[in-house]
Amino acid sequence: MSITVVGSIAYDAVKTPFGERERMLGGAAVHFALAAAFFDDVRVVGPVGDDFGESELAVLRDRGIDIGDVERIAGGKTFFWRGKYGWDLNSRETLDTQLGVFEGFQPKLSPRSRASDVLFLANIQPDLQRDVRAQLPDARFVALDSMNLWIEIARDSLVDAIEQCDCLILNDAELRQLTDKPNLVSAAREVLSWGDGASRRTARGRGPSVIVAKQGEYGAALVTRERFFALPAYPLETVIDPTGAGDTFAGGFIGYIAASLASGGGGAGASGGGGGASGELSDELLRRAMAHATVLASFNVERFGTERVECLTREEIDARAAELHAITQFSGVG
Amino acid sequence: MSITVVGSIAYDAVKTPFGERERMLGGAAVHFALAAAFFDDVRVVGPVGDDFGESELAVLRDRGIDIGDVERIAGGKTFFWRGKYGWDLNSRETLDTQLGVFEGFQPKLSPRSRASDVLFLANIQPDLQRDVRAQLPDARFVALDSMNLWIEIARDSLVDAIEQCDCLILNDAELRQLTDKPNLVSAAREVLSWGDGASRRTARGRGPSVIVAKQGEYGAALVTRERFFALPAYPLETVIDPTGAGDTFAGGFIGYIAASLASGGGGAGASGGGGGASGELSDELLRRAMAHATVLASFNVERFGTERVECLTREEIDARAAELHAITQFSGVG
Repeated sequence: MSITVVGSIAYDAVKTPFGERERMLGGAAVHFALAAAFFDDVRVVGPVGDDFGESELAVLRDRGIDIGDVERIAGGKTFFWRGKYGWDLNSRETLDTQLGVFEGFQPKLSPRSRASDVLFLANIQPDLQRDVRAQLPDARFVALDSMNLWIEIARDSLVDAIEQCDCLILNDAELRQLTDKPNLVSAAREVLSWGDGASRRTARGRGPSVIVAKQGEYGAALVTRERFFALPAYPLETVIDPTGAGDTFAGGFIGYIAASLASGGGGAGASGGGGGASGELSDELLRRAMAHATVLASFNVERFGTERVECLTREEIDARAAELHAITQFSGVG
Repeated sequence: MSITVVGSIAYDAVKTPFGERERMLGGAAVHFALAAAFFDDVRVVGPVGDDFGESELAVLRDRGIDIGDVERIAGGKTFFWRGKYGWDLNSRETLDTQLGVFEGFQPKLSPRSRASDVLFLANIQPDLQRDVRAQLPDARFVALDSMNLWIEIARDSLVDAIEQCDCLILNDAELRQLTDKPNLVSAAREVLSWGDGASRRTARGRGPSVIVAKQGEYGAALVTRERFFALPAYPLETVIDPTGAGDTFAGGFIGYIAASLASGGGGAGASGGGGGASGELSDELLRRAMAHATVLASFNVERFGTERVECLTREEIDARAAELHAITQFSGVG
């Protein structure tokens, strides 16, 4: 099963207490794709400018990522972000954002990208997300990320986009902001009620049935109509740069799900599974996907930008997933 | 095995987005004791003023808590705290603190309180914590909580107090502040190196071997020399008042440990245990204690002050511990 991701391909300038990079490969679609490619085929859709280098494209190509829909805009400049993190990396300040080729971007998906069964709408303007969503009407699993900016200036369009998805992946604080609910559980329940998911799924439409709240260094939570699951972050003694961690998390999560759907391993019959999300994703599968997402994100923050994930191996992922299991499980209760 | 706790007994005035209380029973020692009393015998040491009511004492007595060392200071006023929480309860503002009888408090422990095997030094001035610590030289397990104020104005005394304990329970951000380390793991390792715990334990001295970082609504983490463990908070759709949640957490944690020590159930031989902390607390036991602490804290925040824990039953605790287990475990990885 293949995954199409639409989102930013960028150059980032980042300063953390542990160093800085003046111009490194970044962007939500890039971080997502590099993580998801460990599990399944990935096609990237997004614009770059004349300034985008061959060596950056090679980073994606080397992982087998399909870059046929990476559109080079003649005379354009690649999306650029400059940010700075505080001493504990929990606060970050955006110093500069240059949309470049993202201004006026109209996603044109090739037949191959439109044929994917899984779609990830990374954080871009919600109208663009809806546009792309409409180009994959038959996708089996569609997930969306967003940010506070769009909640503030384009909420109606964003809500409409979310209603056409199966899964919302959002920062914890943004999920509260989006729903105006003070806590995670009530915020997630609110989104689960959108789009009348349960009944509309029988017709063409659908509504979100899987909500993932990213909590940064504290981990992440998963809320479906039936169940709740939460996982702490993998503990690291040294964190260098959190840039892209959320998109890497999403890549691990969606990539793992896509691979499981491909292998028919939706997980029916797994202990604790409940049929649940999207009618075929078991609770056990979603939990394993959360674990892999957590692991991918933990590697991402060990070095700047994509530097760690670029040289990551599947063996390292599996080993850390086992460690994550060991540090979160307990017995003798329940 | 019995537990002695020294700390504040207070009246709190609290305003949250969901209501307010003008004068309710509070204080670290009270919240701790009410939680710990579900597991073991508890003796409370702390001062109150003439204004402290019989009905508030009865709340403790009704749970079988020994209040023989609750000292009524003639002419004094009970410790008073007034605070206000923001809409998502993550931010809180202290509007008023009146030390009252805590000014000039000199803890005088009865022989019974000095005979406890387990001691919890709730958040009070570190010199007082050291004073009490010295009155129980043979305690088998000593834990300490503190706060940013003491880190700022009495750090040396606080570090000395910590070095004489087995366990430090602190808010995540305060643990970083205390150690000037930007992340949880490195901060915990720093404290684990204090007091030369490994070698001094063979003589009279000791050093902290169990570090618990409280992360509020995100849960809590446990760090020992050998292992790491983290647990999300129990998810609640409605949180009314977080006041006392940290002390209730500590009460659940220390209470569970004390009961296990009493029953000889240090957990040697439990799967995943490593001998570890204090030479007799297995990793599995500490994890179960974390789960019970998490459960107690989750009940505490469901109503104002002590209102929920006052009417809590052991059956409710066990049921929620089983639920917590169900929402944090995953399989098929590792």
